[in-house]
Amino acid sequence: MNKFLTFLLVLVVVISCNEKKESIVSIDDNQHPNLILTAKSVSEIKEKLGNIPVFDETLKTTKETVDAAIKKGIDVPIPKDMAGGYTHTQHKANYANMQKAGVLFQLLGDEKYAIYIRDMLLEYAKMFPTLPRHPQTRSYARGKIFWQCLNDSNWLVYTSQAYDCIYSWLPKEQTTYLNKTLFRPYADFLSIETPQYFNRVHNHSTWGNVAVGMIGLVMDDEELVNRALYGLNKEDVDLTAKDNDGGFIFDKDGKAGFLANVDSPFSPDGFYTEGPYYQRYAMYPFLIFAEALQNKKPELKIFEYKNGVLIKAVDALLNLTDADGEFFPLNDGQKGMSYYTSSLVSAVDIAYYYGNQDPKLLSVAKKQGAVQLDATGLKVAIALKEGKEKPFVKQSMELSDGSKGDEGGIGILRYNNGDETIALVYKYAAQGLSHGHYDKLSFSMYENGDEVLQDYGLSRFVNVEQKNGGGYLKENKTFAKHTIAHNTVVQNEVSHFEYKYSKGSKNHSEKYVFDASNPSFQIVSAKENNAYPGTQFHRTMVMVKDESLDKPFIIDVFKINADKKNQYDLPFYYFGQIISTNFDYNTPKTLSTLGDNYGYNHIWNEGNGVANQESIQFTWLDNRRFYTITSATNKNDELILARIGANDPEFNLRRDPSIIIRKKNAQNTIYASIIESHGNYDPVKEVANNAYSNFSKIEVISDNANYTAIKIKFKDSKEKILILSNLKSDSGIEHSVTINGRNYSWKGFYYFK
Amino acid sequence: MNKFLTFLLVLVVVISCNEKKESIVSIDDNQHPNLILTAKSVSEIKEKLGNIPVFDETLKTTKETVDAAIKKGIDVPIPKDMAGGYTHTQHKANYANMQKAGVLFQLLGDEKYAIYIRDMLLEYAKMFPTLPRHPQTRSYARGKIFWQCLNDSNWLVYTSQAYDCIYSWLPKEQTTYLNKTLFRPYADFLSIETPQYFNRVHNHSTWGNVAVGMIGLVMDDEELVNRALYGLNKEDVDLTAKDNDGGFIFDKDGKAGFLANVDSPFSPDGFYTEGPYYQRYAMYPFLIFAEALQNKKPELKIFEYKNGVLIKAVDALLNLTDADGEFFPLNDGQKGMSYYTSSLVSAVDIAYYYGNQDPKLLSVAKKQGAVQLDATGLKVAIALKEGKEKPFVKQSMELSDGSKGDEGGIGILRYNNGDETIALVYKYAAQGLSHGHYDKLSFSMYENGDEVLQDYGLSRFVNVEQKNGGGYLKENKTFAKHTIAHNTVVQNEVSHFEYKYSKGSKNHSEKYVFDASNPSFQIVSAKENNAYPGTQFHRTMVMVKDESLDKPFIIDVFKINADKKNQYDLPFYYFGQIISTNFDYNTPKTLSTLGDNYGYNHIWNEGNGVANQESIQFTWLDNRRFYTITSATNKNDELILARIGANDPEFNLRRDPSIIIRKKNAQNTIYASIIESHGNYDPVKEVANNAYSNFSKIEVISDNANYTAIKIKFKDSKEKILILSNLKSDSGIEHSVTINGRNYSWKGFYYFK
Repeated sequence: MNKFLTFLLVLVVVISCNEKKESIVSIDDNQHPNLILTAKSVSEIKEKLGNIPVFDETLKTTKETVDAAIKKGIDVPIPKDMAGGYTHTQHKANYANMQKAGVLFQLLGDEKYAIYIRDMLLEYAKMFPTLPRHPQTRSYARGKIFWQCLNDSNWLVYTSQAYDCIYSWLPKEQTTYLNKTLFRPYADFLSIETPQYFNRVHNHSTWGNVAVGMIGLVMDDEELVNRALYGLNKEDVDLTAKDNDGGFIFDKDGKAGFLANVDSPFSPDGFYTEGPYYQRYAMYPFLIFAEALQNKKPELKIFEYKNGVLIKAVDALLNLTDADGEFFPLNDGQKGMSYYTSSLVSAVDIAYYYGNQDPKLLSVAKKQGAVQLDATGLKVAIALKEGKEKPFVKQSMELSDGSKGDEGGIGILRYNNGDETIALVYKYAAQGLSHGHYDKLSFSMYENGDEVLQDYGLSRFVNVEQKNGGGYLKENKTFAKHTIAHNTVVQNEVSHFEYKYSKGSKNHSEKYVFDASNPSFQIVSAKENNAYPGTQFHRTMVMVKDESLDKPFIIDVFKINADKKNQYDLPFYYFGQIISTNFDYNTPKTLSTLGDNYGYNHIWNEGNGVANQESIQFTWLDNRRFYTITSATNKNDELILARIGANDPEFNLRRDPSIIIRKKNAQNTIYASIIESHGNYDPVKEVANNAYSNFSKIEVISDNANYTAIKIKFKDSKEKILILSNLKSDSGIEHSVTINGRNYSWKGFYYFK
Repeated sequence: MNKFLTFLLVLVVVISCNEKKESIVSIDDNQHPNLILTAKSVSEIKEKLGNIPVFDETLKTTKETVDAAIKKGIDVPIPKDMAGGYTHTQHKANYANMQKAGVLFQLLGDEKYAIYIRDMLLEYAKMFPTLPRHPQTRSYARGKIFWQCLNDSNWLVYTSQAYDCIYSWLPKEQTTYLNKTLFRPYADFLSIETPQYFNRVHNHSTWGNVAVGMIGLVMDDEELVNRALYGLNKEDVDLTAKDNDGGFIFDKDGKAGFLANVDSPFSPDGFYTEGPYYQRYAMYPFLIFAEALQNKKPELKIFEYKNGVLIKAVDALLNLTDADGEFFPLNDGQKGMSYYTSSLVSAVDIAYYYGNQDPKLLSVAKKQGAVQLDATGLKVAIALKEGKEKPFVKQSMELSDGSKGDEGGIGILRYNNGDETIALVYKYAAQGLSHGHYDKLSFSMYENGDEVLQDYGLSRFVNVEQKNGGGYLKENKTFAKHTIAHNTVVQNEVSHFEYKYSKGSKNHSEKYVFDASNPSFQIVSAKENNAYPGTQFHRTMVMVKDESLDKPFIIDVFKINADKKNQYDLPFYYFGQIISTNFDYNTPKTLSTLGDNYGYNHIWNEGNGVANQESIQFTWLDNRRFYTITSATNKNDELILARIGANDPEFNLRRDPSIIIRKKNAQNTIYASIIESHGNYDPVKEVANNAYSNFSKIEVISDNANYTAIKIKFKDSKEKILILSNLKSDSGIEHSVTINGRNYSWKGFYYFK
């Protein structure tokens, strides 16, 4: 217990305008706080207070919040409500305020904050021993204070920090009482008593692990710390159990605990397999516990674990955002969540402090306008004061998926021209655990901060009580996770892997090529061979910046090989209003659904046409910009103008439109499309600039097992040829092929001229 | 011709940093320019250039635009295309660039600008004499250069200014040639040869009048100036003819010309009966011609005409905007048009100069960031430089309609709390000429710059060629103008006045009360007795700011008396997603339209319920805010969840939702509702604040010919009683009434406690 014990003598010199003080403070390393704040960092911060603007501002806001809470009085109600309801919200506020009060007590020295925490903890300690599991029975792992253990863990992660801040201030008999009556039982409840929650690889479990670990570190309870790091004994648990999200409760090889949760869901690039929305949620426990471990168990070298993946994860996460800092809603992601969330404030500060003090992180911190109130936030605030920040310009990049980085990934192609940015997000990753969607080779596209072609995200109103208690809505499973809700191909109106989690989670797409080295021709390509047995998908997306055009355009080549004839549907989920089509279509007098299952039951068929030509065009207006998709078609390809919203008795779904290109009775085939942002509309000047596509046509001029060749024709009759190699990718190979009597020779994966 | 002739000697003193120059300029009042720029103002402006930031900046932008145009070369194509098409856009650019070049020639003295105008005018003079009417036959008054005379008039209004700027520079024989070959024939074409266009009261005709008047002033052609001011002789024209908008071509009493166009459509408050979108369009010709008249015929005292209505009109127009400066889309209005449009830059500057130099106008000019490049803009720029601006805080106000101000009006109730604003726009005006909608007693509501309950506006994509050449879409007549497209009552599924323009334009609603003197209780009330023969509507809207609530709420009382049983529908066009309802409803498996005519044919029926209680609640989330309508119902009232978009083969309509409260087999009845903005959702914090309504119920506790009494119950069980007098309004009357055994006594129109 005493192994951390050392003594430090710190000479604190405070220099302000007119006076110079010196004081000698005796700091005992084993003296609390020693979890996130430490006696040393408290002393350093106090020295600088008043002179570190972002830190001072954050402290001020924090003080206002807590002072208001103290004024309102302590309220520890008997747990009753779902998320968004009164008792839920109150307990949530309680842990947040306690954590803040702990910091204020340490930094401002005002005992009222310590008293507030103590009195509240005593209330919890009074209630806890007789508390049954929460009366709301919806969760696979019901909590005591909240409807699910997840929220109980949130409580303990934050409260541990508060407790640490007053630990040394409390009389010994009170810490003994609280440890025994409240905290150790609480930790056992979350772990031993709820193994299906604690002992798996999942963001929920990470919270559980960290809750147990944090309180273990505070109480110097090695057993709890080890349980947090390594999980429960696997003999004690059923490895085949499933949670009520449809996820396996335990990792395939039975690993569990915090380190397993770092090992398994993170790829070596720092991508978290559940997707950025859940990564954002999980980053806080990952990093706050890492910081605590670094403070109390530096010999673990947690920030170097798996080649420093925790720091890389912060960089990955910041890159998984649009121009407004909002996370791409891959898998179950709620739109609007952004790097302004408090867990990212912590993450950025911790990554700056424990990483390489990357000055690009500072510009994010500056936008956030707040810091974590500890040594990491202090360092960031000082660096900002010194003007050290550099712009965080998001670049094209690939983030591999899979714990070894060999389970596909996410390819992001980007165009940056000052404030004008376009981003293409292409997903060829693994299933993403229970929050994964069945959307192999899907993509989304952004212009500036706006979605152009959307990923629907989840179907949920997080913490809006009226909407199913703030929890997932039925339509998440019946629509949002389905393939047809995404910009990728559905075969025979059945979702990928027959919408079976057991199948989906055994497979992943395969990266084929990622090359963003040439800003005028960035390419990403991947294959999916398992979504439909007997069918191979190979989708290549290229971002081309042609000199003659203001903005880049996308070439999208989706090649399909199958062992039988199928129907294929490729939707493009645009927004806004249709401006023109070059194909005829009929609009029905009454609306029916597109199908009966796999999400088709949630889609209205608003219009139907047949291509009747070799290339169709579809132009729409959204956010005062014009967009066109030009797509090579067979004459009998069908075009469906669709809209989400059927069979939605509680209006849980957004009424968003899409155009679906349907190929019936096709076996091997190709979808080849150009996607472009080409103009804008100014409603004040009432001027439409470049309202027409820059292209007249796209054609597949050759396609076989070896090569796929595409010809695109510009409006001004300029032509370009794109040839993609379908051979095993090797950038060194020399290719030579004759198409329509002309020979093309090149080296590497593609030809484009 | 020589009656304006005077001579002035002006001593111009230019002081710059290091030098002092003196020069004596001889200015001849009859010397051009003397229309908008004058020799005197040119001299004053030149003196200040480089020292008046907004003016300098505007001049710089103008120079860049024109220099680029000159570089591109002169292009005067044979007219061919519709709006948005090539020849249309080119001719539009030509007149805009000529007008700007004229200003640049005068202010910068570079002859290349004069040469550019001269050469272009010679091209037009070459083409014009043999030009037939435009090949596109859609307009009731086809132009020559454009598809409609309206655009030809735009051309002449701008080109007159350019011509004036180079008139004295051109050799006499060239002005003689241009006057005879191009301008006089052009003016005759727009007037004598197109009487159905020129000789009526309509924004189109205003442009025609001004075009003829401006060129008349340039050429000192009194006959044209008089024709512009007073119209053609009425003996020559057919008073019963209609245009192809469905409007009467001539004013009821046969008045025409510019002064008639000031007299008739403007109310004494400066409200223009067509609505703000067309007022904005018309303000430019109204004010630019007024400025020209003031310069050349000051004896007309045009700015004092009709008690200075032209200046008042600018103030009215600025008040008819939301927090972002966008005009309320009353009648045919395209959303997004705002006071940033160039015609409002002119309007604000002219109103400042010729009005009382209202410093509030300066803050609008500051936002616009540009000024008119003449004496008015100079004055504004100098005042801005001197920091004279005051905030333009829009207040609650009533704007009467009708040339005498006795044909109803628009009542705007406003709440301002810093950046937090709520505006209720209640329409009880006259028909609004051919651009009017059939929406008696309708309203719309705004929060900050966002629409909460919308007015659909027009159905058109102005200048987007793919959408019907940028012109009105069929759906404007079949949906957007209809009653069901608005937040007001439809009887028996037939639009007001049976959707007949001849009936609508004979009638108007009647103001009953407007009182915004108490910011905690602002009230507006009006009656409509003619929309449906035998039925009287009386709608009262109140904006209440209760101390216990953060924001004001609206009480909406729509009282109906009829001589027989009818069906009534009251829609509320909200945006966003439904959060909860306290009534049950069914959602159909297939969607059908609400009806077959009067706009009902464009609405899908997405859900149906029956109230089954005395008060229903409907909560939705939009723009991260929660809203609720609480409405008193009879148990068998029906609720319809509707969405626009049926029978829309070209997807011209937006898929916007509404909730319709339907009362069947009702004779005398009341819709009494509370409309409130009560909370917000933060997707970063994932917190829903005040997601529930502040009210539990609204009841009609008494209703008869004399009084209507409403009880509203707050969630915390507080109650308030609202009693409205239905007697002829008289704020002095003492009232006493007993309801449910309790006596209420008060003075004036309403009781609220």
